[in-house]
Amino acid sequence: MSRKEFRDLASPERAHEVVDSLDLDPGTETVPLDDARGRVLAERVDAAQDVPGFDRASVDGYAVRAEDTFGADEADPARLELVGRVDAGERPEASVGSGECIEISTGAVVPEGADAVVMVERTDTDGEDVLVRTSLAPGDRIMFAGADIAAGERALGPGTELTAREIGLLSALGVDGVPVRGTPTVGIVSTGDELVRPGEPLDSAAGEIHDVNSYTIAAGVEEAGGDPRLYPHAGDDMAEMERVLREAADDCDLVLSSGSTSASAVDVIYRVIEERGDLLLHGVAVKPGKPMLVGTLGGSAYVGLPGYPVSALTIFRTFVAPAIRRAAGLPEPRTATVEGKMAVEERYAEGRHRFMPAGLVEDGDGDTLVYPVDKGSGATTSLVEADGVVEVPADTEYLERGETVAVQLFSPDVRAPELFGVGEDDPALSRLLDEIRRPRYLGLGSRQGLRRLRDGVPDVAVTCAPGDPGVDAERLGAWTREWGLVVPAGNPEDVSGLADLVDRELRFVNRTTDSGLRTSLGNAVADLADERGVERHALVDAIDGFERAVRAHESPARRVRDGTADAGLGLRATADALDMGFVPVGEEAVRVLANPDRVGKPGVERLRELLEDDGAVDSLPGYSKE
Amino acid sequence: MSRKEFRDLASPERAHEVVDSLDLDPGTETVPLDDARGRVLAERVDAAQDVPGFDRASVDGYAVRAEDTFGADEADPARLELVGRVDAGERPEASVGSGECIEISTGAVVPEGADAVVMVERTDTDGEDVLVRTSLAPGDRIMFAGADIAAGERALGPGTELTAREIGLLSALGVDGVPVRGTPTVGIVSTGDELVRPGEPLDSAAGEIHDVNSYTIAAGVEEAGGDPRLYPHAGDDMAEMERVLREAADDCDLVLSSGSTSASAVDVIYRVIEERGDLLLHGVAVKPGKPMLVGTLGGSAYVGLPGYPVSALTIFRTFVAPAIRRAAGLPEPRTATVEGKMAVEERYAEGRHRFMPAGLVEDGDGDTLVYPVDKGSGATTSLVEADGVVEVPADTEYLERGETVAVQLFSPDVRAPELFGVGEDDPALSRLLDEIRRPRYLGLGSRQGLRRLRDGVPDVAVTCAPGDPGVDAERLGAWTREWGLVVPAGNPEDVSGLADLVDRELRFVNRTTDSGLRTSLGNAVADLADERGVERHALVDAIDGFERAVRAHESPARRVRDGTADAGLGLRATADALDMGFVPVGEEAVRVLANPDRVGKPGVERLRELLEDDGAVDSLPGYSKE
Repeated sequence: MSRKEFRDLASPERAHEVVDSLDLDPGTETVPLDDARGRVLAERVDAAQDVPGFDRASVDGYAVRAEDTFGADEADPARLELVGRVDAGERPEASVGSGECIEISTGAVVPEGADAVVMVERTDTDGEDVLVRTSLAPGDRIMFAGADIAAGERALGPGTELTAREIGLLSALGVDGVPVRGTPTVGIVSTGDELVRPGEPLDSAAGEIHDVNSYTIAAGVEEAGGDPRLYPHAGDDMAEMERVLREAADDCDLVLSSGSTSASAVDVIYRVIEERGDLLLHGVAVKPGKPMLVGTLGGSAYVGLPGYPVSALTIFRTFVAPAIRRAAGLPEPRTATVEGKMAVEERYAEGRHRFMPAGLVEDGDGDTLVYPVDKGSGATTSLVEADGVVEVPADTEYLERGETVAVQLFSPDVRAPELFGVGEDDPALSRLLDEIRRPRYLGLGSRQGLRRLRDGVPDVAVTCAPGDPGVDAERLGAWTREWGLVVPAGNPEDVSGLADLVDRELRFVNRTTDSGLRTSLGNAVADLADERGVERHALVDAIDGFERAVRAHESPARRVRDGTADAGLGLRATADALDMGFVPVGEEAVRVLANPDRVGKPGVERLRELLEDDGAVDSLPGYSKE
Repeated sequence: MSRKEFRDLASPERAHEVVDSLDLDPGTETVPLDDARGRVLAERVDAAQDVPGFDRASVDGYAVRAEDTFGADEADPARLELVGRVDAGERPEASVGSGECIEISTGAVVPEGADAVVMVERTDTDGEDVLVRTSLAPGDRIMFAGADIAAGERALGPGTELTAREIGLLSALGVDGVPVRGTPTVGIVSTGDELVRPGEPLDSAAGEIHDVNSYTIAAGVEEAGGDPRLYPHAGDDMAEMERVLREAADDCDLVLSSGSTSASAVDVIYRVIEERGDLLLHGVAVKPGKPMLVGTLGGSAYVGLPGYPVSALTIFRTFVAPAIRRAAGLPEPRTATVEGKMAVEERYAEGRHRFMPAGLVEDGDGDTLVYPVDKGSGATTSLVEADGVVEVPADTEYLERGETVAVQLFSPDVRAPELFGVGEDDPALSRLLDEIRRPRYLGLGSRQGLRRLRDGVPDVAVTCAPGDPGVDAERLGAWTREWGLVVPAGNPEDVSGLADLVDRELRFVNRTTDSGLRTSLGNAVADLADERGVERHALVDAIDGFERAVRAHESPARRVRDGTADAGLGLRATADALDMGFVPVGEEAVRVLANPDRVGKPGVERLRELLEDDGAVDSLPGYSKE
């Protein structure tokens, strides 16, 4: 088969139909009771025996013949002869004759001859006799055999999910081997030449990256009630990859792969589908997810997922997870979708059905706001910065701010973060966040922090920008941090300050323009230019690497440590953490500003407390609280 | 220590405090990434490397020097010499000089010298040359090293629950050993002399019953994120039980037992607590749950739960499960509580804080109704007939019909049944219920079915009562069933009809008065009395066992099969299912009646369809659809 040309992409509805037509049925199996939780009954379970299996005393007291107590009351008790005693788990040794009684414990077998039990509280003893101070009717305080559930009665129906309580009923019925729906086995075949298992070393210069999708999708398969099997990565050996695909198809109910950037891997997939099955669908008119493949591989089903992690998880969750759940007999989780209001307007240029990655944040009233997350192609951090996707039909031009939308969560138990912040990347802040349950923080720099705070999305912004922040905000706290040049341990080049970068042949690494440190460096360079009476750009041009900008607070220092630079822009705290040398240049102030509507949120209150009381900020080298 | 006398029972708040003060902390451990789903991070994970680890092409196209394309457009392309090719997972073999380009795949390393990538769609080839028909800026279509997440950046905080998406981010970071909170180990010690493991045979005459609580609570421990360990039942050997308790205390973070009816078992527990720990609380002022014990056993915590299954699960869920979740680092499940309106009024005589077992049912509008479930002490079927409990403070005298209450679900994924019926116990009905997802059916007989339908609780009643049902109801369907006397296979006593029960010395077993069959039998006996010109009670008195009444449809037949009776009231279908003989006496009509407000409910519609179309009714011997 040459690659089929599909002129039209399938509609999302058609893709659902095709995936739903696949046979993932794992059959049934019998599991021991203590492994049955979370499984689904394959067939009806009727009681095979009466529960309880005998007439059982419901209280501690005396087993009697009810007719012996007729007319008895407090003043005029019935006097019965005590002829024995029976405890729970004992066979009664005596029977109860007329005028007799037997002492009995809760749960014990009611002896032959007795037809009622009197509570000990309604009796007295008098020598060998028992005085019963109440009248009893036959059956009083007895749970008859089969009264709980009788042999032949319907106990649990097919399709019942087994939670603690159903396990309890099965125990009562004495069922040990439980007939349950099998767990669909899902083979996950890693197809990218560049993929390396987490834990194994990476050769970045050769373009290797860790395999993200296999592990993400495996976890998604488990969440959907399937049994994931990771098939070892085939590298660039196409014959080996073909063998692995065939093996997975033989062993599993469903085989998944996620989009490879390698054309040869795609060709292998086509070849195996051609030989062993049918290609049922190629391409779906959704964004992301256009490259989805659906087919069969012999007796197994096959779905090819897109390559980017958020796309792969979205397509998996939308089309594949429901099919796995159905095969396992599990219902859709109740909490898989939440509603919220759009925090910002979002416009769409392209008329394609889309799954917009979205984050959740609670406003000051506890209502859920939804904002789009778009970190661009292939960012794995989007996996944790988005909470789910909003399905947007192809004819939607925009979602209005305040419009109610439904977010399909990536996992049923996803919840809005307790604190959502945007701004400077800072090690002290990181420590404070450790003390907050479920924070979300995007280290996008001061400008983005303030811009987003102005848009009303995050709870707080963390900014180095001095002066008026240009947004109505409440200051939760602030600190200063010492910055300068991070150099190798021992400062082998004997760097003494900023002037050395200008005057000597030193390779420098800067931060990107969104960072507060970059602004502080720019100001220091301007001061030096003033001092020397030259133009600022002359100094900038003289610094080898002023435009060599990296994104995060440790990144320049790490370049220096790797030997690719002699000095990097950074904090004293960073130099200290990485056991490197440090040449101080200045101090800058960092402020934490809150949206005034959100100051009552527990996460924001907690951050304020931490800023006031916690030693985390002051204990870092070069830091002091304002 | 002699048993301490606690004059006052602890308040529920105090019980929470005491349980919360127990130390269940399981410490931390490191697990492989593919076992990390559902666990909770024990410490912050910062990125140890840049992701991606290299400057990465975001599209298929050509790696170029941006300055070579300045000014290029559709009409006036830049012509570049193609000097090589690099795929994902490959080390670039060439670098890009001025006027040169290298073909590059998505995900591949951007070669030395290049600072932008142009999409293949914006280019043409001309012999060995590539024509670039657009201007590029430095950085276009490149994801720079660390742009996704940079070494040193905060990736995930302590306390993060690991779902598919966090697993994805950890994969990207190459983390294989994940530091997680340990799982609290919870020992469950079975203490009743009368308890037998499910699967093992039961000696009912000696009062044995299957161990329900150990398995129910073990499943509850798993649901709460703990690791349950069942300690083998100690029987009535108190020295052995003491040894098991000590072993469990040594091995586990928490030891649970559930109320034993045996005083000697309680004494052993007291003795072990005295020697090894402290009794912190004895008795809580709640119903059920008064006998709760809380204490320590050496380094382990101990909670004694009540003995009845619903009580044990309620106390476990209310006081113990939150402590296990906290120790495991897991949040309270979001769906653990649902709101609904009381379907009936419920009054309380006794001023005790109580957890009222309650069932859920949806009304015709999809609103949730709540009704009390009280099957009396010790019924294990309450576990599945109730969906959770409503907490009712001690000073509440009644809950009004229509009042909104919160139901604490027994498991987070509990949902209202799709169909709720009450009435006759019938094998054909049982088959129909198998075709409905999540039905709930209480075989309480015709009278209870109609009474509850009148109260507005169930969706349908199944009744044998002829004539006007005395409630506004819609008939969904009906059938007749043949009834008579079930006798041993081959009818060894040669029973030919009802008259034989009166005239001969045959041991008979009847059904309880709530069953339709009992009414039909009563009518047949009255007819026979008329025929003979005698009083009905004279015939009744002549039948040995007319008052020997058992509850479920197979129960009399099973007594006959056991040899404890010669004939039992039953259906031809039952005799057939149990391979027994049958002597026909008559036919009776069974009607399925629905609450008119509920006929639009999917479960009710499904039952109507099944009654119309399904062969399940007609295929049973002695049955015909009306």
